[in-house]
Amino acid sequence: MVVWFTGLSSAGKTTIAEGVEKELSQAGVIVQVLDGDQMRRSLCRDLGFSDEDRIENIRRIGVVASLLERNGIIVLVAAISPFRLGRDEVRKLCGTFIEVYVNAPLNVCEQRDKKGLYVRARRGEIASVSGIDSPYEEPLEPDVECLTDREDVVTSVSKVLRAISAAGFPS
Amino acid sequence: MVVWFTGLSSAGKTTIAEGVEKELSQAGVIVQVLDGDQMRRSLCRDLGFSDEDRIENIRRIGVVASLLERNGIIVLVAAISPFRLGRDEVRKLCGTFIEVYVNAPLNVCEQRDKKGLYVRARRGEIASVSGIDSPYEEPLEPDVECLTDREDVVTSVSKVLRAISAAGFPS
Repeated sequence: MVVWFTGLSSAGKTTIAEGVEKELSQAGVIVQVLDGDQMRRSLCRDLGFSDEDRIENIRRIGVVASLLERNGIIVLVAAISPFRLGRDEVRKLCGTFIEVYVNAPLNVCEQRDKKGLYVRARRGEIASVSGIDSPYEEPLEPDVECLTDREDVVTSVSKVLRAISAAGFPS
Repeated sequence: MVVWFTGLSSAGKTTIAEGVEKELSQAGVIVQVLDGDQMRRSLCRDLGFSDEDRIENIRRIGVVASLLERNGIIVLVAAISPFRLGRDEVRKLCGTFIEVYVNAPLNVCEQRDKKGLYVRARRGEIASVSGIDSPYEEPLEPDVECLTDREDVVTSVSKVLRAISAAGFPS
């Protein structure tokens, strides 16, 4: 199974994925988090932030996720994955796929700004930040939606765990 | 554990890897083959055959292999991986790493020429074929050496299985 967390930077994708990972690990499930930032330092370190490179980034993470899934591992992917088409393509690569929309309004994400991305984008120091000068295409029918501006992490994690359980995992 | 099969095209890497896979699978071990040709159609489909692209190709396969290994899977990589430096780098990414040199002389590989690579290279139709107009750097101290011009597949597979067993797998 692949659980794919999509949303703006600072929406809470990694936080929720790590919460889910902790719960599943404690239940004895083999689980692997693929974090977009980490993947950009390893598998995808040759890629930038153009639309084309973002699509390739997601494609590669999808290939790796499907390989892990095929071997019985539950994979939690936390990556902005801004394009609908890209997310639909990775869904096709995977057996069981749960799309989790980690949804917080841009102004909330900007206030959090964990990595200082937004402040630098507003200052014109960096370009191609999703939601600012690069598109983010919201999921139209996500399997789970976490409204992180108005629910706490425990609630979001529970929603995802319920969806995982409803899909029959861990079996 | 990662078992990395290196050698010229048509040396027998995939054949031996698949033989090892079959034996391990029958023993109930979770095993994943990463075949260079398949990876070039998926994870590495943006890459060509320049020295730089070959190094990147091996690097990516190494990242994926180490991710699978970390989750308890025995990974069998079958890829020419022509450069010593590239193989040394993937070794560093992995926990337990067994380098298998699938060694057959170039003229034997050319006679086999399973993919018709050599005949096309000799005709000048394609470039950058390892052993012809692109370097292949032999391992200096491989963990296992399979001499596929003078031993049969069963013998080669047994050598690799012994090395896997000596390294303590499956535990």
